[in-house]
Amino acid sequence: MDAWYDEWRDRYPVASADDPVRFAVVGLGGFAREYALPAIESADGCEATVAVSGSPETAANVVAAHGMDRHLTYEAYADGVGTADYDAVYVATPHARHAEHVETAARHGKAVLCEKALAATTDGAERIVEAVESAGVPFAVAYRMQFAPAVCYARHLVATGFVGEPAHVHADFSVRMLADPATPNDAWRLDPDLAGGSALVDLGLYPLNTTRFVLDDDPVRVRGETSSPHAAFDAVDEHVAFTMRFESGAHAVCTASQHAHESHHLRVVGSEGAVTLEPVFFEGAPQTVRLERGGRTTTVELGPVEQLPRQFAAFAGSVSRGIDPEPGVREGLRDTRLLAAIYDSAADGVAVDV
Amino acid sequence: MDAWYDEWRDRYPVASADDPVRFAVVGLGGFAREYALPAIESADGCEATVAVSGSPETAANVVAAHGMDRHLTYEAYADGVGTADYDAVYVATPHARHAEHVETAARHGKAVLCEKALAATTDGAERIVEAVESAGVPFAVAYRMQFAPAVCYARHLVATGFVGEPAHVHADFSVRMLADPATPNDAWRLDPDLAGGSALVDLGLYPLNTTRFVLDDDPVRVRGETSSPHAAFDAVDEHVAFTMRFESGAHAVCTASQHAHESHHLRVVGSEGAVTLEPVFFEGAPQTVRLERGGRTTTVELGPVEQLPRQFAAFAGSVSRGIDPEPGVREGLRDTRLLAAIYDSAADGVAVDV
Repeated sequence: MDAWYDEWRDRYPVASADDPVRFAVVGLGGFAREYALPAIESADGCEATVAVSGSPETAANVVAAHGMDRHLTYEAYADGVGTADYDAVYVATPHARHAEHVETAARHGKAVLCEKALAATTDGAERIVEAVESAGVPFAVAYRMQFAPAVCYARHLVATGFVGEPAHVHADFSVRMLADPATPNDAWRLDPDLAGGSALVDLGLYPLNTTRFVLDDDPVRVRGETSSPHAAFDAVDEHVAFTMRFESGAHAVCTASQHAHESHHLRVVGSEGAVTLEPVFFEGAPQTVRLERGGRTTTVELGPVEQLPRQFAAFAGSVSRGIDPEPGVREGLRDTRLLAAIYDSAADGVAVDV
Repeated sequence: MDAWYDEWRDRYPVASADDPVRFAVVGLGGFAREYALPAIESADGCEATVAVSGSPETAANVVAAHGMDRHLTYEAYADGVGTADYDAVYVATPHARHAEHVETAARHGKAVLCEKALAATTDGAERIVEAVESAGVPFAVAYRMQFAPAVCYARHLVATGFVGEPAHVHADFSVRMLADPATPNDAWRLDPDLAGGSALVDLGLYPLNTTRFVLDDDPVRVRGETSSPHAAFDAVDEHVAFTMRFESGAHAVCTASQHAHESHHLRVVGSEGAVTLEPVFFEGAPQTVRLERGGRTTTVELGPVEQLPRQFAAFAGSVSRGIDPEPGVREGLRDTRLLAAIYDSAADGVAVDV
């Protein structure tokens, strides 16, 4: 699978190590500290120079730990302090805060890599589209799974007819949030106003976006069901199941859970064959691709796959060469609308044409 | 997994080979000839004595091939000819004809094993319930998968807490009907009046009933989507996707297709672990059970599993000892209603509370 991958990745030449893209990291929650900052450090042509946080203590520690230049409060960031010290902004705050931080970045003419979900609401996503497109700044949504070789390979297999006409997709992403309690910095993930939802927004977005990416197609109708058997999830969805119907007649059936055995897979079955990715979504974890066709099965094991450094390198490479980074803001908006439609369907029982 | 299985199967002592249950086989389509008759021949305490068919030639060939006593037309069967030659009736005609043949059997006081789907419509299923319960004859629906060790083992694992609280189920059953064309005897499977539907009724019923059986639970709400991209399926569903929501908050997401790479699996993910059956639904095919819990995975490979002889032996054993055979007529009725609800949801886009 090397040839197709090199070809695909050649769309994203990395930035030069001599002239790296310097990132301001906005929001220093667990994911930013434990995953994103190490990934920026290791990614070709990337450097983390500025830390933006509501907690001066956290920010100071992060700056010291990663040899960064400075830290800013959210107010100082909004006021344009230190804009000479960074070229791009990586937004990793609660979803409901993305819009204001992207608007700031756009006002200062900075490139933006914004964590998914793009926003907590469709209104928030539309604000981001307006800010980014008015300012004309480079922008990408941090769909790291689109930089996983197994996922790209599955997309290639579908595009080149290996599975024939897609008939259906099964996909899941479930974790044990209660067994691995959220840190205080991550408590916002159970706050519907800050997060926009839980199982669907945090986890279900992986099956949703990855299915669209692998099929290279958009659903025409969605349905959703949510449930929250445990009190910790009274305000948000603990479990979600949703279906997406595509114009071709293919269906995707997806689940996600914040309180289940760790599980993540994506399986595409078509008229001629099938491709199964399992495991698939964890950062830094192995990925397995199983190919089936004509009675034969082949399994490709990929060692630990680091999606984040690939994502940051591709973003920086695009920005430094003036190429539009991908996946873009309109893709984030489309997914935000799909999330809202799935929640609407869960609430009133009616399928939503999208 | 032997101990639990022996215990479970002890509920169904087989009939005596000295005094076997003699079956009239009503309907001699491909499944009856290629699968059911050999299974009756090999099953403990079972004997096929009478063949009932609309084609005297087919019936004569079948009687000769299997050393049976006689064959009857549908009219002769309905008129009660030869009732001394059989103790039980196995109904394997198109779904829409089940009711009339079960009514005949009930009128003659015969035990009945009726193929699934129980009927093409809810009205048909209700006629069957009325006939069976009024006459008080032993009755079972031929859900052969409930006699597969892997399926029984999964049910045992869920009941004894191996997976914890079930969060979701993924299940699929897809075949290549177009690549393996239906024989003329099986053309009724594309006729909505005779079959009641295609992908859902023929195949989706396996994920549906097996999920209910493994969880030992009934859904409270269902949704469905159907599509038929190819002209061969203009009158019926080629692909189906459906979801079932359970009172516990667990969700099942299921697919079935008459035109896809052969694929059948069932995966239950709970708060503590997961169990995956793949492959699972083919008669006479291997079954694999994958157990996951606490970071450990164990896979149990079962050689070719013959579900049909187990099903016939259990039915005959129950009948000969005066035990109610399982699964009973009310379970068939419940599934027929669920199929209808899924089609209703597919037609109007609205979730159906059941």
